[in-house]
Amino acid sequence: MISEHITAKLVQLLTKENVITEQEDLLVLGYDSTPGLHAMPDIVVYPVNSEQVRDVMIIARDEGIAITPRGSGTGLSGGSIPIQGGIVICLNKLNKILEIDEENLTATCQSGVVTLDLFNAVAEKGLFYPPDPGSQKISTMGGNVMEDAGGLRGLKYGVTRDYVMALKCVLPDGSLLTTGGKSVKDVAGYAFKDLLVGSEGTLGIITEITVKLIPPPQEKKTFLTYFADIRTAGEAVSKIIAAKIIPSTMEIMDKATINCVEDYVSIGLPRNMAALLLIEVDGHPAVVAEEAIAVNNILEQVGAAEIHIAKDVEEAASLAEARRTALSALARVCPTTLLEDATVPRSLLPETFTLIEKLAEKYQLRVGTFGHAGDGNLHPTVLCDERDKDEMKRAHAFYDELYEQVLKWGGTVSGEHGIGIAKKGYLARQIGVGGVAVMRRIKNSFDPQGILNPGKIFESKQES
Amino acid sequence: MISEHITAKLVQLLTKENVITEQEDLLVLGYDSTPGLHAMPDIVVYPVNSEQVRDVMIIARDEGIAITPRGSGTGLSGGSIPIQGGIVICLNKLNKILEIDEENLTATCQSGVVTLDLFNAVAEKGLFYPPDPGSQKISTMGGNVMEDAGGLRGLKYGVTRDYVMALKCVLPDGSLLTTGGKSVKDVAGYAFKDLLVGSEGTLGIITEITVKLIPPPQEKKTFLTYFADIRTAGEAVSKIIAAKIIPSTMEIMDKATINCVEDYVSIGLPRNMAALLLIEVDGHPAVVAEEAIAVNNILEQVGAAEIHIAKDVEEAASLAEARRTALSALARVCPTTLLEDATVPRSLLPETFTLIEKLAEKYQLRVGTFGHAGDGNLHPTVLCDERDKDEMKRAHAFYDELYEQVLKWGGTVSGEHGIGIAKKGYLARQIGVGGVAVMRRIKNSFDPQGILNPGKIFESKQES
Repeated sequence: MISEHITAKLVQLLTKENVITEQEDLLVLGYDSTPGLHAMPDIVVYPVNSEQVRDVMIIARDEGIAITPRGSGTGLSGGSIPIQGGIVICLNKLNKILEIDEENLTATCQSGVVTLDLFNAVAEKGLFYPPDPGSQKISTMGGNVMEDAGGLRGLKYGVTRDYVMALKCVLPDGSLLTTGGKSVKDVAGYAFKDLLVGSEGTLGIITEITVKLIPPPQEKKTFLTYFADIRTAGEAVSKIIAAKIIPSTMEIMDKATINCVEDYVSIGLPRNMAALLLIEVDGHPAVVAEEAIAVNNILEQVGAAEIHIAKDVEEAASLAEARRTALSALARVCPTTLLEDATVPRSLLPETFTLIEKLAEKYQLRVGTFGHAGDGNLHPTVLCDERDKDEMKRAHAFYDELYEQVLKWGGTVSGEHGIGIAKKGYLARQIGVGGVAVMRRIKNSFDPQGILNPGKIFESKQES
Repeated sequence: MISEHITAKLVQLLTKENVITEQEDLLVLGYDSTPGLHAMPDIVVYPVNSEQVRDVMIIARDEGIAITPRGSGTGLSGGSIPIQGGIVICLNKLNKILEIDEENLTATCQSGVVTLDLFNAVAEKGLFYPPDPGSQKISTMGGNVMEDAGGLRGLKYGVTRDYVMALKCVLPDGSLLTTGGKSVKDVAGYAFKDLLVGSEGTLGIITEITVKLIPPPQEKKTFLTYFADIRTAGEAVSKIIAAKIIPSTMEIMDKATINCVEDYVSIGLPRNMAALLLIEVDGHPAVVAEEAIAVNNILEQVGAAEIHIAKDVEEAASLAEARRTALSALARVCPTTLLEDATVPRSLLPETFTLIEKLAEKYQLRVGTFGHAGDGNLHPTVLCDERDKDEMKRAHAFYDELYEQVLKWGGTVSGEHGIGIAKKGYLARQIGVGGVAVMRRIKNSFDPQGILNPGKIFESKQES
């Protein structure tokens, strides 16, 4: 509960318009995009600049109130759900692109800028910001940095971490810290910036971000190719990389996903195929031409059932768009979609597909799998109904057994969604009790009161 | 002082051969490559595997003895000098390359492997490990990771940080931690790996490293170009980047450096020129051909005095080699060479050269400047004599004033050498007192006793 006194303080600071206290408004701000998770904030505030973020943090610090940062709520691990109530600080009104520096190839924006808006703004200047999480039309840059968002172009171009050059953030002690800069090399002191990226809003609240930009590829060629057996698709991925070709995209969908997507967008995907790969090579026209021939040869050699090359940019875009609908398409067919992001060294893709099929059968579940095959990053998605207790139990057993093997293979329990609340149970299995202990000490060194985004990542007494 | 009891324990653990106690042997292990710095270790040990490193750490922990990790001692900020005596743990006998994984494009090695040995081993398999610090023939991978070493190819290919996928390390509490893996995406928990990179041996001792490999460029073209004015060279760098060309190398040398290098290697560098740029474009032959034309046009347009293209791979290699001798060449002409690594956003290169010239004149110093122009990363090197107290005072005043402006421009006091002991005075100026406080809390969360590499990075009471 927030006292009237504190509410009044926040209204005075941010104006009435930027302080939400009505129950029906608060309700919707207690969700992100993770199924089955919700918690009510006591109050939601919308600061419009870094100084207001700092001032709200100081109030939370002085009053010992939990404070949970959020953007558009597209997170998939519950990282922005205010499980201890308190203040939710929504950064969507910090939405200005502050600078595009064409000489140093950087862009600086506030943390509430929508990812695609930044992409488009730099594209207008002939530059390229590669990270493209599935939710790029809605997700914000602050959320992308805090979750170290991946995307479809991760294989060749890397993830959000690879582009963050500087961060301005508010620490739980109420100080404003700027870390990094426009220098492409900087080794002065510990790598705060790199520690903050992927810290899921538990160490500081980001208000401004400077990212690296690169020249865009001049050309690309897009393949859509089908397979009668999903393992063959995995083999194609391995052989392409082994041939030293790094496509910008290698996305996979299994039969269940193909059918759901086709139901949704009707673009003529063949319903009888076991898998499809969407492969894109980009760069200089001569490179694209050579790599396209090599990719085509490998696809023929492994025995792809059909190889289709997009005839133009529009068709390529519509294929990529179809892939982006995969989650929504799967989500339409059942009340609950449990989406995971198991990731393995990419040489183990065929084994991972075999395992998912085996476990789906063992636990009698409908599973649709899609994902970033080139990164070994898969989204095995259980289509279920959270009202069916037995089915939910089987779903959790399915993931448990899957992750056990993924970890044995040297993989990770989260390739791009983060731990949040949803995966807290898995973290120690991956990084060990010692690893969690070090994390806890780091958290404590930033936030001794435990007010910032409490109950996330770590198992903690408060919510057990 | 180390008691006989502890010495006996270490000998029992590591064998007599791997424990150094003779004063004349200890003396040489109290240096790195930073001029004017030395401290005597009480004992030096050479473990041969991760478990021995852990066991030595446990002895240090239980006995409260300072422990300082080192490799080949090529560091340039005093990071491996045992300023509080105690145990020096030299990792050069952890020198095995453990695996080159051609399917996942990774290599795993122990931390004492020499950088160039790893480069050569992966090159034999047709793969490429890009980071190439100036000292790559001697420096070890562990040191490279701990200092986040840069190199000549940083502009296009990034620095050590960009290639580290997993680390095995021993923490000050005596635990062995593995962080990261072969999955190209991993967001489970805080980014320990990224925090450890560049932490200068103050948070843990690295024993094994897994790095990312990439396909090597198929071709390259090397330009050696001279300028009558160093600012024109800076302008050429800016224009090349603004034309969206990212060369693999853009190295600069000023007149003083050209002359010292020519004295040293006699390859016919013109002694009357104000600056030279060594530019290399690499990649697909078609890309190289186009970029070479574009680079040539820009060089002509800005008014380069002479443009020379290496006729073959051998000549290109000998030019790069000449650049690598810059520090040694400068070091020959005077008793003391103070080498710094000021780094600015690259658009400010011309202003930085002007400033260096102005300050050299103001403080009456001989300064040779070379470095990674494409990264805005310069090595203004004062040629002096540490016995001349007045000259040393002027040298420090020179750097003080230089760094003050570099920081105003949003640059950094260290682009690639780290803070170590040499630059402790500058750190707070860059990251603020608040930033140093957060670092201290992080250090404390890893090493509450303060035994690991004490007195580094932070200003601390012990050695003031």
